[in-house]
Amino acid sequence: MRLAIAYDVSEDANRRRVYRTLQRYGAWRQYSVFEVDVTKAERVELEDDLESHIEPSDGDRIRIYRLCESCQDNTTDLGSDPPDEQSNVL
Amino acid sequence: MRLAIAYDVSEDANRRRVYRTLQRYGAWRQYSVFEVDVTKAERVELEDDLESHIEPSDGDRIRIYRLCESCQDNTTDLGSDPPDEQSNVL
Repeated sequence: MRLAIAYDVSEDANRRRVYRTLQRYGAWRQYSVFEVDVTKAERVELEDDLESHIEPSDGDRIRIYRLCESCQDNTTDLGSDPPDEQSNVL
Repeated sequence: MRLAIAYDVSEDANRRRVYRTLQRYGAWRQYSVFEVDVTKAERVELEDDLESHIEPSDGDRIRIYRLCESCQDNTTDLGSDPPDEQSNVL
């Protein structure tokens, strides 16, 4: 399944861990947003991983959207194309 | 229809305009992510509005995800609940 994952993590070290975890599963889309293609089992594993990297008491938050084929077809991009190199993500 | 909108805007003034535009349509979810419920016509109007506020040459980017009922039901939140007051958004 396709997931769009938006993360809001205050501590640099935690944000880097979240970023590296997500990198193992999929592609950086834009600042604090990744998209990944995972199985149900991988989704459970990914969510456990992510949960271990964030600090709710700091206000850290991750929102995970499932995108079916139809919703994927209805995604719109405005502005510039995402750069290949993730220059400004950390 | 429900949309999740992730924005990546470098200039503070532009980001504020994007934020205020989105505030007219829906709810702030977390840093740089809004969710709105709009009609097809409102989506077109919103996208035109947003496009007028960003600078592609600055690398500004907005990604708009459509979320059907089923995808909405498959959304997951990790970490803290979103604060009511949008304290750290600008």
